[in-house]
Amino acid sequence: MLLGRVAGTLVSSRKDPSIEGIKLLIVRSLDADGEETGQSIVAMDAVGAGVDEVVLLAQGSSARQTEVTHNRPCDAVVMAIVDTWEVGGEERFHKHREGDGS
Amino acid sequence: MLLGRVAGTLVSSRKDPSIEGIKLLIVRSLDADGEETGQSIVAMDAVGAGVDEVVLLAQGSSARQTEVTHNRPCDAVVMAIVDTWEVGGEERFHKHREGDGS
Amino acid sequence: MLLGRVAGTLVSSRKDPSIEGIKLLIVRSLDADGEETGQSIVAMDAVGAGVDEVVLLAQGSSARQTEVTHNRPCDAVVMAIVDTWEVGGEERFHKHREGDGS
Amino acid sequence: MLLGRVAGTLVSSRKDPSIEGIKLLIVRSLDADGEETGQSIVAMDAVGAGVDEVVLLAQGSSARQTEVTHNRPCDAVVMAIVDTWEVGGEERFHKHREGDGS
Amino acid sequence: MLLGRVAGTLVSSRKDPSIEGIKLLIVRSLDADGEETGQSIVAMDAVGAGVDEVVLLAQGSSARQTEVTHNRPCDAVVMAIVDTWEVGGEERFHKHREGDGS
Repeated sequence: MLLGRVAGTLVSSRKDPSIEGIKLLIVRSLDADGEETGQSIVAMDAVGAGVDEVVLLAQGSSARQTEVTHNRPCDAVVMAIVDTWEVGGEERFHKHREGDGS
Repeated sequence: MLLGRVAGTLVSSRKDPSIEGIKLLIVRSLDADGEETGQSIVAMDAVGAGVDEVVLLAQGSSARQTEVTHNRPCDAVVMAIVDTWEVGGEERFHKHREGDGS
Repeated sequence: MLLGRVAGTLVSSRKDPSIEGIKLLIVRSLDADGEETGQSIVAMDAVGAGVDEVVLLAQGSSARQTEVTHNRPCDAVVMAIVDTWEVGGEERFHKHREGDGS
Repeated sequence: MLLGRVAGTLVSSRKDPSIEGIKLLIVRSLDADGEETGQSIVAMDAVGAGVDEVVLLAQGSSARQTEVTHNRPCDAVVMAIVDTWEVGGEERFHKHREGDGS
Repeated sequence: MLLGRVAGTLVSSRKDPSIEGIKLLIVRSLDADGEETGQSIVAMDAVGAGVDEVVLLAQGSSARQTEVTHNRPCDAVVMAIVDTWEVGGEERFHKHREGDGS
């Protein structure tokens, strides 16, 4: 899965009927240190993620394995909001210490 | 999903019978700022997109999840025409302000 | 889908039984201007493409959606021979003007 | 499949119900010489891998072919812990000689 | 599909039960001239390939379409041993002229 930060939202009125009502997010990819990699992706939202939240994305056919995205033309889904992660025994990201949670 | 701008069309007369009648588009990939990344892709059209329109593409097996592309050898589909998107609270693209919509 | 030019053929006598009788092509990838990108791929042939022809390839699970490749370990298939494409209202490729068609 | 070294763990409390109870690992990709490539991936754990262990990952739809990940939005799974590998008749990695096994 | 040369083997004792008994190969990727690209991949073996043999790999879900890999967490399979290929009417690789076949 891919780490990312929700950067914005996208609106489309003319679209395949199968994606009616689905929220589309612009997500910036993050590396394991929490730094932006420079790449962005448009993803469907399965968990109610908000702008600036750090999230986990599933891609490919696996992006269709949530209730929201099942059988839709979806190749990327936000399926978790990240609380914290650590690398080498050291915390690299903590949602609340970022100031976006509390 | 991938952002792109429809750049042109492609014609093939000798092809797998399963893609008879499908419109093929040449699409230039865009980043989250609306700039071309330099990469292009050929995609099937599920929404009647025209040249210069900014669109959303699904790739991989997810590209077969529209009515138009179901069960076809399709790994990229234009499945939405983008009206607008914003990043960091700022509008990065608006269809009508581009002059191609009104 | 990917644009490519058929560059050659590949022969294998010891192989998985499921690919017996399938023609294997070496294809050089092309960009939207018809220039080689420097990347090559081995693809199964579903349309009888010949060396030097410009073709369209489907990749991934979508490569198994032709009659020839169904249920085979095939991640790339030549599924159309390209007649012409245009970008920005200008023809970038025309099969017959290349001298390989007439 | 991809070689990697488990670098850390990730915690999420708000997530798609389908991934409840699944352990999420941060894995650094390794090349055939056992050197880090600089890329990281988040993967689900199907074998009880610990931090610093060298592992094998399956990606894409194949990541859903373990009992742990079946039908989940999982595009990367740790499905083996590597004991040893050799390239050109020479051992490039041995778990116990690394000091992390015995 | 991808061209590669078998470079070595990998051993794992703690692994998902679904891959018990499967041979794992380290394969170096080759370009259409037979030169190494610098990338390596771990693949399951469906054809009994030996070290130094030049092989063809299928990736993604297509890697599960051989009898050996069916329903396993396999995203790359060696499914053919290459005898010869030619590009531009010129032979670029011939198994026996390499000295590894006769």
